[in-house]
Amino acid sequence: MLPPASRPAPPDVEIMTIGDELLYGQVIDTNSAFMGQELAKIGLRVRQISSVSDRADEIVGALDQARQRARVVLITGGLGPTKDDLTKHVLARYFGSELVMDAPTLAHVTEFFKRYNRPMLEVNRQQALVPAGCQVLFNAVGTAPGMWFEDQGTVFVSMPGVPFEMKKLMTDQVLPRLRERFEIAPIEHVVVMTVGLGESYLAEKIADWEDALPPNIKLAYLPSLGAVRLRLTGSDDGQPDLRGRMLALLPALRERVGPYIFAEEETTLEAAIGQLLLARGLTLATAESCTGGLVAHRITGVPGSSGYFRGSVVAYHNDLKMSELNVPAETLATSGAVSEATVQAMAEGARQRLGADVAVATSGIAGPGGGSAGKPVGTICFAVADAQGTVSRQISFDRGRALNITYTAQSVLALLWQRLTGQV
Amino acid sequence: MLPPASRPAPPDVEIMTIGDELLYGQVIDTNSAFMGQELAKIGLRVRQISSVSDRADEIVGALDQARQRARVVLITGGLGPTKDDLTKHVLARYFGSELVMDAPTLAHVTEFFKRYNRPMLEVNRQQALVPAGCQVLFNAVGTAPGMWFEDQGTVFVSMPGVPFEMKKLMTDQVLPRLRERFEIAPIEHVVVMTVGLGESYLAEKIADWEDALPPNIKLAYLPSLGAVRLRLTGSDDGQPDLRGRMLALLPALRERVGPYIFAEEETTLEAAIGQLLLARGLTLATAESCTGGLVAHRITGVPGSSGYFRGSVVAYHNDLKMSELNVPAETLATSGAVSEATVQAMAEGARQRLGADVAVATSGIAGPGGGSAGKPVGTICFAVADAQGTVSRQISFDRGRALNITYTAQSVLALLWQRLTGQV
Repeated sequence: MLPPASRPAPPDVEIMTIGDELLYGQVIDTNSAFMGQELAKIGLRVRQISSVSDRADEIVGALDQARQRARVVLITGGLGPTKDDLTKHVLARYFGSELVMDAPTLAHVTEFFKRYNRPMLEVNRQQALVPAGCQVLFNAVGTAPGMWFEDQGTVFVSMPGVPFEMKKLMTDQVLPRLRERFEIAPIEHVVVMTVGLGESYLAEKIADWEDALPPNIKLAYLPSLGAVRLRLTGSDDGQPDLRGRMLALLPALRERVGPYIFAEEETTLEAAIGQLLLARGLTLATAESCTGGLVAHRITGVPGSSGYFRGSVVAYHNDLKMSELNVPAETLATSGAVSEATVQAMAEGARQRLGADVAVATSGIAGPGGGSAGKPVGTICFAVADAQGTVSRQISFDRGRALNITYTAQSVLALLWQRLTGQV
Repeated sequence: MLPPASRPAPPDVEIMTIGDELLYGQVIDTNSAFMGQELAKIGLRVRQISSVSDRADEIVGALDQARQRARVVLITGGLGPTKDDLTKHVLARYFGSELVMDAPTLAHVTEFFKRYNRPMLEVNRQQALVPAGCQVLFNAVGTAPGMWFEDQGTVFVSMPGVPFEMKKLMTDQVLPRLRERFEIAPIEHVVVMTVGLGESYLAEKIADWEDALPPNIKLAYLPSLGAVRLRLTGSDDGQPDLRGRMLALLPALRERVGPYIFAEEETTLEAAIGQLLLARGLTLATAESCTGGLVAHRITGVPGSSGYFRGSVVAYHNDLKMSELNVPAETLATSGAVSEATVQAMAEGARQRLGADVAVATSGIAGPGGGSAGKPVGTICFAVADAQGTVSRQISFDRGRALNITYTAQSVLALLWQRLTGQV
């Protein structure tokens, strides 16, 4: 790495996403948000995000404007093998260079097709063409390489628009190179994950603590459905051990909202639950109706979840609530499929049938159909059963089928976490 | 409405979303996609989407550039009551006008707070201030009104960033006014959904068809994991029945890639499968190991899926493959949990146990752990069982746990769709 003194100050960054599908609204641009988050973490500010078409003249126009605003321009999209992918050709012309075959990339692409033993086409070969003079950023998970250009003091980086390819290139290569290329003041992040308390209530409970934060430490509320992530960002104040001083702020935070904190690092609720289960040698099962497998999907998304997760019965049809989860026919007849009595029976049935120490259950009316006067769309029940007994909740939440399902899964995991931590 | 002749030709549209949270990646900009979709439907092209900060000078700079590219500029965000909401003040200065109280808006805001009997603060009263000379677009579902400006032939529209408020203003007021203000030529979109063939293979199979497209009809490839959406966009060429002529191109497309087409409209594979099942009166069940409930989650994400989906057994632990899905112990012992023999037994067991006409099963090593020399991470098996028999596949796919799970779910749904359409 160059000595700090010889490296220029941190630049503003411009993000440019390319593709007609973005302008037509057929694809939502999630790449920019990821890049913005990652750049913020290393202390770089995004000046503007621009989404432009696949037309060469419009891409060039956007490049001209971006370089007037920022000294780093991160570009995604338009690197595919098809006719409408122009970015590489436009950049070559823009920097006045020819497309040349990059041998390592060609070898990688060839091997890529050999591994999946698919025939390699000429268009695939051409994925290894790059503008002469750019630094090739090896793309281990795809066939289109990233490209790093420097032109009159401005850095241009072109990456594929495929999110997981872009993310790997950003993380493994682009961010480290930016760190090396520019003198970036140290910045620290401390993240605290909370669940069970809305943003405004959380803010109220910690208002005095937030007001007392030193000027170089900022607090951000990052709410998601049923959870709020608190992120402290500390910028260099010339004093030693910035991170240590930030961590020293946490005990006072715990005093105020301790019961709602499930982790003091970037993680998920299901991962935190998994650690608790592992630590106690407990196994878990789920019985799902309205969530249709989402709870199990979230739990099994955690590496190593096979160490504590037994499995799930998605009893969408009432027959299966009886035959696979031992829910008594009377319970369904008297209380209905969406009731605390039914989810309690489902959770207890799952514990027995699936041989788990702890089981959760969900049942609700996700909509748009299926609602009634007594039980409108958004009526949601969930339960947790363990050796000590069973707890259940009924709530009302209707923001459309997809969000209703998501919120139900989040709610039952929150109840499970509260149960495992002795809060309910 | 003005007679066509007297209305100007369709303008390009520029979308500007305002807010630091967009640049930090704390919020994903979904407003632009909605606006892009709605504008495309009425034949207006989005020239560029720009996300800018809450800083006045940067908003002004973006306005200056946007008006050079387009004659309509749609702006969202920065209309809230807090200090960092500057849009209204910036626009007033930009158009050289004063903020004046808009009586209907003030009455609406007052009534709004009365209804929720909350105290109305001065900052709330100020929500009714608008730049003199703008046309106020009444916001029935919020307190910040939309604002329509005309300046030297360019239309500027400012809307709140809250998605459901923006959507209502766009639909009820902005789109109708644009239709009335401009003479808009028809534009048509035809979407064809494919699965089972990679982008480059698809492109090669239809290259001659694509080359023969008339100049006013453009083709875009929109790939996602295991599927490619083809989008034809037709612009007016003065000839009648543009849509009819676009649809007339499809038979030749079907000749080339018919077996891979699962829909000729915007939809999902699971929704297309649901329609097939409903049409034939067939029920479905899933037996999942590595996908952990994702297949069931995708199926139950479709409204009305309770009409054909019985349920799922997520048999994560081998015990449950035997006890809940009747997989013979010998099969697990001899072939292993990740094998075509096991997924075949799981699918057949799910059909019987869950009482379904058709069942799918998955088992694989999602990683990062659990791999072996014989069965490395990414070894994935899946099967479909119906009254005619059982088909299964083993593939190798390793792009990290999350994508391995996603791709397995996509693969088994693709096999199910091929089975239901008599291809396998």
